[in-house]
Amino acid sequence: MNRILFESHEVDDDTLRLTGPRATHIRRVLRAKPGDSLLLGLLDGPLYHGRLLAIEPEVLLRLTPGPMPERPPIDLLLALPRPKVLHRLLPQIAALGVHRLFLTNAARVERCYFDTHVLEPHHLRDSLIEGLTQAGDTLLPKVRIIQRLKPFLQDELPVVSQHHNRFLLHPRDATPLLNSTLSYSRTLLAIGPEGGWVPHECDLFSSLGFHPVHIGSRILRSDTATLAALAVIHMTHPALPSPPAT
Amino acid sequence: MNRILFESHEVDDDTLRLTGPRATHIRRVLRAKPGDSLLLGLLDGPLYHGRLLAIEPEVLLRLTPGPMPERPPIDLLLALPRPKVLHRLLPQIAALGVHRLFLTNAARVERCYFDTHVLEPHHLRDSLIEGLTQAGDTLLPKVRIIQRLKPFLQDELPVVSQHHNRFLLHPRDATPLLNSTLSYSRTLLAIGPEGGWVPHECDLFSSLGFHPVHIGSRILRSDTATLAALAVIHMTHPALPSPPAT
Repeated sequence: MNRILFESHEVDDDTLRLTGPRATHIRRVLRAKPGDSLLLGLLDGPLYHGRLLAIEPEVLLRLTPGPMPERPPIDLLLALPRPKVLHRLLPQIAALGVHRLFLTNAARVERCYFDTHVLEPHHLRDSLIEGLTQAGDTLLPKVRIIQRLKPFLQDELPVVSQHHNRFLLHPRDATPLLNSTLSYSRTLLAIGPEGGWVPHECDLFSSLGFHPVHIGSRILRSDTATLAALAVIHMTHPALPSPPAT
Repeated sequence: MNRILFESHEVDDDTLRLTGPRATHIRRVLRAKPGDSLLLGLLDGPLYHGRLLAIEPEVLLRLTPGPMPERPPIDLLLALPRPKVLHRLLPQIAALGVHRLFLTNAARVERCYFDTHVLEPHHLRDSLIEGLTQAGDTLLPKVRIIQRLKPFLQDELPVVSQHHNRFLLHPRDATPLLNSTLSYSRTLLAIGPEGGWVPHECDLFSSLGFHPVHIGSRILRSDTATLAALAVIHMTHPALPSPPAT
């Protein structure tokens, strides 16, 4: 926990009361003492500093607000991985930073993957918060679970992802992600399942303005590719002037 | 398995005989038929094409040699992660591609991590081969397990890693990895344990010419940071003329 996140109902005036794992973390891992200053954040809100007032029987902190964290410039459309992989990947995606996360069906995604408990709202949320507390962010990725890819891409994507560079991670007939042309400050990256997108899916993405990009000649597992591509975009895409948030 | 790897003792003249998991993969996953051409590679040797001669009772392939794969331009010095994390990370490191992998002790590495079966030679090898078959490479990362960091850095590193950019992944007082000055075509990247390097380790690295670099303001778990940093180096470091292999 590099930043401890809280919710507004836990705050009384400017005092935060913590029990449970976060309190235990402050006592046993940080070994904090009254008077110490800790890094905090309101979930989906500003960063905070907290001055520790007491550690027993409750952890009490006096809050001082800071700035809002920056919204990550990346939306990720990811063919739903198998549950075990998804479980590992969610905190890492949140740590690297995405604004929206679309978890979608595809020809090579097994239907039963949608039945996993990993997709239940509280599990998704806990996994993403784990990544945010690691990275020091407060902004929860906005997750959408998409059972039917084509209507989503054709009807809904234009609304939520209008001013975005659109890239499709694809090993063939692609340009290096690093050299891809940027028209916007924000990027939507689509990453396929193990085995890749099938041709009619590639055609659909292409018809919607997705440019095929690659991150090298080595063929990566889709979870490794996801982390690698997010890292490269975060590191290399310059912050262009951003249109209003959608 | 995007490329099936074999060893020289499995080849008779130009015919390769496969049994076990690789044969099963060819029959059940690839559903290959006699006459099909498959991507193969000699472990630590050239790439091959294989023409499938028979699938039952053994898989028989006629080999045609291709080029040697390129040696990855990265050596990785990684503070030994806990066994569960290491187990997951090894195939991903091999898939992204490193030439040498130094797994080292550090002040914040638990001694008991060195007792794990994950570090046994056959386990290391199997995990790395899994990553190579995924990525389509044949060159097994050369692994060294280092129980004492300081003598290794001072006495041995100059021999095995002479003409390398030396970078220390470090969140503070660092320059972006992307903008770091490159003097050589090859890079040695040092990544610390959870909690980071302690000050005297940072001083030691600094005295040996390691430049602190970061990959953004977000604090990543060391396994996520490892994959992210490898991806960024592979994608962004231009291939400079290389001195002879060491």
